[in-house]
Amino acid sequence: MALIAAATAVPAGAIAQQPAPTAVAKDLFSRELAQSRLFLDEMMRAGVDVPQPKDPGGGASHEQHKRNYRALYEAGQIYRLNGDPRYRDFARDMLLAYAEIYPKLGPHPARSNDQRYGKLFWQVLNDAVWLVNGIQGYEAIRNDLSPDERAKIDPLFRQMADFLSVESVKTFDMIHNHATWATAGVGMTGYVLGDRDLVERALKGSRKDGSAGFLKQVDELLSPDGYYAEGGYYQRYALWPFMVFANAIERYDPAVGIFKRRDGILVKTVRTAIDLTYRGHFIPFNDALKEKSLNTEELYQSVAIAYARSGDPALLSIAQWQGRVALSPEGRLVAADLAADKAKSFPFGSRLLRDGPDGRAGAVALIRSGDSETGQLLVTKNASQGMGHGHFDRLNWLYFDQGREIVTDYGAARFHNVEAKYGGRYLPENESWAKQSIAHNVLVVDGRSHFNGKLDPAEEHPAEQIHFAQSNDFSISIGREANAYPGVTMNRAVALVSVPGLEKPVVVDLLRVTAASPHRYDLPLHYQGHLIELGPDFTVNTDTRPVLGDSAGYEHIWVDAVATVQRRPVVTWQTGTRFHSWHWAPLSGSSVILAESGAGDPRFGLRREPMIIQRVEGTANALFAGVLEGHGSYDPDSERVTASRSQIASIEAGTVGDADIAIITTGAGAKVAVAVAHAGDAQKRHRIQFAGQDLSWTGPAARIVLK
Amino acid sequence: MALIAAATAVPAGAIAQQPAPTAVAKDLFSRELAQSRLFLDEMMRAGVDVPQPKDPGGGASHEQHKRNYRALYEAGQIYRLNGDPRYRDFARDMLLAYAEIYPKLGPHPARSNDQRYGKLFWQVLNDAVWLVNGIQGYEAIRNDLSPDERAKIDPLFRQMADFLSVESVKTFDMIHNHATWATAGVGMTGYVLGDRDLVERALKGSRKDGSAGFLKQVDELLSPDGYYAEGGYYQRYALWPFMVFANAIERYDPAVGIFKRRDGILVKTVRTAIDLTYRGHFIPFNDALKEKSLNTEELYQSVAIAYARSGDPALLSIAQWQGRVALSPEGRLVAADLAADKAKSFPFGSRLLRDGPDGRAGAVALIRSGDSETGQLLVTKNASQGMGHGHFDRLNWLYFDQGREIVTDYGAARFHNVEAKYGGRYLPENESWAKQSIAHNVLVVDGRSHFNGKLDPAEEHPAEQIHFAQSNDFSISIGREANAYPGVTMNRAVALVSVPGLEKPVVVDLLRVTAASPHRYDLPLHYQGHLIELGPDFTVNTDTRPVLGDSAGYEHIWVDAVATVQRRPVVTWQTGTRFHSWHWAPLSGSSVILAESGAGDPRFGLRREPMIIQRVEGTANALFAGVLEGHGSYDPDSERVTASRSQIASIEAGTVGDADIAIITTGAGAKVAVAVAHAGDAQKRHRIQFAGQDLSWTGPAARIVLK
Repeated sequence: MALIAAATAVPAGAIAQQPAPTAVAKDLFSRELAQSRLFLDEMMRAGVDVPQPKDPGGGASHEQHKRNYRALYEAGQIYRLNGDPRYRDFARDMLLAYAEIYPKLGPHPARSNDQRYGKLFWQVLNDAVWLVNGIQGYEAIRNDLSPDERAKIDPLFRQMADFLSVESVKTFDMIHNHATWATAGVGMTGYVLGDRDLVERALKGSRKDGSAGFLKQVDELLSPDGYYAEGGYYQRYALWPFMVFANAIERYDPAVGIFKRRDGILVKTVRTAIDLTYRGHFIPFNDALKEKSLNTEELYQSVAIAYARSGDPALLSIAQWQGRVALSPEGRLVAADLAADKAKSFPFGSRLLRDGPDGRAGAVALIRSGDSETGQLLVTKNASQGMGHGHFDRLNWLYFDQGREIVTDYGAARFHNVEAKYGGRYLPENESWAKQSIAHNVLVVDGRSHFNGKLDPAEEHPAEQIHFAQSNDFSISIGREANAYPGVTMNRAVALVSVPGLEKPVVVDLLRVTAASPHRYDLPLHYQGHLIELGPDFTVNTDTRPVLGDSAGYEHIWVDAVATVQRRPVVTWQTGTRFHSWHWAPLSGSSVILAESGAGDPRFGLRREPMIIQRVEGTANALFAGVLEGHGSYDPDSERVTASRSQIASIEAGTVGDADIAIITTGAGAKVAVAVAHAGDAQKRHRIQFAGQDLSWTGPAARIVLK
Repeated sequence: MALIAAATAVPAGAIAQQPAPTAVAKDLFSRELAQSRLFLDEMMRAGVDVPQPKDPGGGASHEQHKRNYRALYEAGQIYRLNGDPRYRDFARDMLLAYAEIYPKLGPHPARSNDQRYGKLFWQVLNDAVWLVNGIQGYEAIRNDLSPDERAKIDPLFRQMADFLSVESVKTFDMIHNHATWATAGVGMTGYVLGDRDLVERALKGSRKDGSAGFLKQVDELLSPDGYYAEGGYYQRYALWPFMVFANAIERYDPAVGIFKRRDGILVKTVRTAIDLTYRGHFIPFNDALKEKSLNTEELYQSVAIAYARSGDPALLSIAQWQGRVALSPEGRLVAADLAADKAKSFPFGSRLLRDGPDGRAGAVALIRSGDSETGQLLVTKNASQGMGHGHFDRLNWLYFDQGREIVTDYGAARFHNVEAKYGGRYLPENESWAKQSIAHNVLVVDGRSHFNGKLDPAEEHPAEQIHFAQSNDFSISIGREANAYPGVTMNRAVALVSVPGLEKPVVVDLLRVTAASPHRYDLPLHYQGHLIELGPDFTVNTDTRPVLGDSAGYEHIWVDAVATVQRRPVVTWQTGTRFHSWHWAPLSGSSVILAESGAGDPRFGLRREPMIIQRVEGTANALFAGVLEGHGSYDPDSERVTASRSQIASIEAGTVGDADIAIITTGAGAKVAVAVAHAGDAQKRHRIQFAGQDLSWTGPAARIVLK
């Protein structure tokens, strides 16, 4: 936890708050063009290079085929813009070279053991991406080729489309993002070659009956709120073929009304992907790489198409943040309208994103206070499993402030495309650590992950979103999970709560677990920062460091310290220029463990990150209550430091009948109660006594300022 | 080591490469003014608050007295500018309040056990800083006060000057930065009160004979190259009283010619402080906080005075980087000239900074390739101990590239002014870890720190700088240390060397140790990044983690892995968007240890940072040869990754007669030798045979490209 990073990390850009100088916006498209020409000129200097497929992700042949499809796409776009035959001829020559080798290719030599092999790449997904890009390049030059050339290249694309839709039909007919790429490639090939059969297969599946295909994917992969089950990181990637193919459908088959389908779900999905970012970076739950931001080709493309189809000026402010636009007619429009000062701020706000095609597979809640660059963002994840990239993280929450992740999610264990690190693929530690429940801010029962770490039952049973409400001084999300462990039900309310006298709202977490029999409960809080002050008397492992367990991710946890006596139940850490204190209401007989990831890691695949684990054993029902308070500031320039100690004096928590209560008392004497009633009835009035206070409220949850 | 930091850290600003829009520069001074008025208005609204001294650094009374001296200074400056009597009256009332309590104050209740106590603050240093600021505020308003008011306030300052120069005479007469603050405060008080005796004491010491005092400090604390023995971090701080008092001397006593003294050493010292930064942050050797940048009040002041006295336009580009100027007439000049586009780039370059008043106490070498924001910087420290803030790090080296620290120095173990963390003072781990030799990239003999960690003998014996040379393809610094361990001599050559076919120069490290008897040698390399690939077969401690030793810093080292067989002697890590490989030539019978700081740390004071330790036992003489190679790139936006594996095939190293040789062979077959002759003679011709190659060169060191 280097403070140099703390002190020098600077927001990558402020969305819509700092309008780019118009001169920059005006140049955005010509800068793209210039950059692309540099790339293409270098490719042309090197000459057409279509290597025999050999290497896995990140390897030389893999990277060359990627460069090639990018070159095909861009050469086509530039040729369309300026008619320079050099670009057309280069794309043509490259396609002729592919036409030469492609018919002789079998399954890729570096394929995995499963059936999703590609021919140019180790997995069929990449072959589909090649086709989506390649066909767009071909589309731009095809009319200006000789019949003889077309006669050689058309079959290349037809063979590729056959490989994707016939030989790989299992992938093609899935309701899955990989199938979206495949149907996009095949469908656009159909449009360009005038092959209606390919188009029909792409839109309606290999059986052409609507039981699979792109339209069904649009209907089933996206929730009514434009949420994609794998989460923001993969939503970003999934968007690309959705938007690009939809754009082609709108041009070739306007009668389909693809952008009107499901009330404009495609453009909504682009907006939702943007909602799922903080400081321009995707909220890193499920298999996500934390460095991934809005600055990616798929989002230049998607933002441009969404803008061209919706005219929503908030999308322009995203292009401005990106400082990039797609090299397409739509990208050109974005650059022009940005230069014409048409941008409006993107309305980042608090919202509930329902999951599932019908919106009934739980939800992800975003609770924001302030902007998306420096403000607070509380995320709760009471959603579906998220398919193969989903983590076992039922009722997880994350928290961001001041441009930083404070309460964290490990994201994925992977060094994407870094060949020297496990071939650039997901590390084994992605399964053994990153996906396991203990690697998340969730309740772990008896040392096993939710659903015992099995995907199928987890996919069957999404979490439930019980309640969501937002206002200036109290926003709350309540979730329930009753299937992760047999006989165990977890209810969790996480809220952003204003407390009189405190600078910013605090996070209140009330997790109630009920079970038929006693269990061991572990509740970790993963955070980012350097420990400043410890309330309990910890016994610290200073000269040998044991491991917490031997399975379900526990084998990856070093134990730093344990405390059983918890008279002052608070731990304070510093993250960047701010302090955070985590307060909890100790459970009888419980202990607190300070720990770090990184054990059981013979190839150093894991980052080493700290966590605080509350542990209680032999209990059936329990209420875990916690409060996260940001306080004070550290200014390395002026050396002024304020409030390095918590401003909260105590937390009291308990369950009274159907309700869970937490009362926060500040050092200055302010008292605020958060009350959660498990009956979801919005009209029901509640009146209870707790800690000598009369509390009354209406509905599932309330913030009550006490005298 | 979170990749999110890697991916999103953005240089805080590019010195002189991105001229600030003129509008900003024009506003720089008025922005300072506006900011200061906000601060003062708040202070005035709160009313004069001069509390009884009570708390240590970071505590409430400490911070209030700091706010007060800042308010005095700024109120004076603003009153001088606009004559608004509110500011004068506020400063006057505050001074009257101080005049009320000051005569009754004894030693500060939170003082340490030593004699350097203050009255307003826990240490006398802070009292001196109060005086330096307070007297400047008083100077600006004194003429416009009534005789009666002056008669109450003059004695306050006289008592303060007496406290510093009589009661605290031991500090006052030191040749030490703390004495510079004291003499500055006392001398400026003398000028303002027209008290020549105070001025003489300040300039020439309490005995007024030149055996102490400011002039002697100017002569003895600064080297001929403007280097201050404690290093860049404290040089920044030391500058402030030097420049502010010198500026007063020039105004009141121009005949002293203070800015001409020693060939303009004061302005040179400001430039050298700037040289000692990378990306605007101070090179963190000795007791340094890594978050400290050029953005500090002392540097706004020093840059402004240095510019006003020298007219050097390169200093304007520093003010531009800072985006701040001093609230003084000199600061106003800087803002005006910046607005008039007079700024020139600051000439960051390779240079040798000799240490010691006569330049004979070793040196710090800076070897740069590229700019100071994203280019390479290699630092060698063959200098004096650096007094009480010095570390036992003889012949240490550090390396920066792409805006990041790659080969690191821990700096200081301290959470400055964070009261909740050991009162904001240096942590005990600053002595037990940060100062110890094993915490640096230096040779440790028999598990003991240099000079056994004793300050006095270390102060007596600086390291030696043997040779320094720079050119486009080969820059080198050679140091020698013969006193750190009895009977042991270390010679170390560290060079930045171009290798045909490699993108950037590599670092070559040749450390030769000779001793009368066998020893255990440990050579750590502290780095920043995530391990990607390991050449040797390490035995990894996956389920329990031992500690390396029990003293001299070893008790703070967790052992992650050990390898004895080192067939592929290379370790690769990723830092941000780049890969680095550390290659070494394994010594017979040696082992390699992967380790991390953070053991033996019951209060979690330490950051946890990785290191690679080469260990050899029972050897008298040895040559440690290493090469640090940056390679490839990781682009999270485009997901393009290049050269994640090293481009170097092998390193061969050995000693032939008087010369140490390393030969680097790249994967592409290029071969470059670095030859170091221990005879320093610049004219001497050398001709040797090594590894089947004839090598010949002239002088102490050479780069030889082989066929």
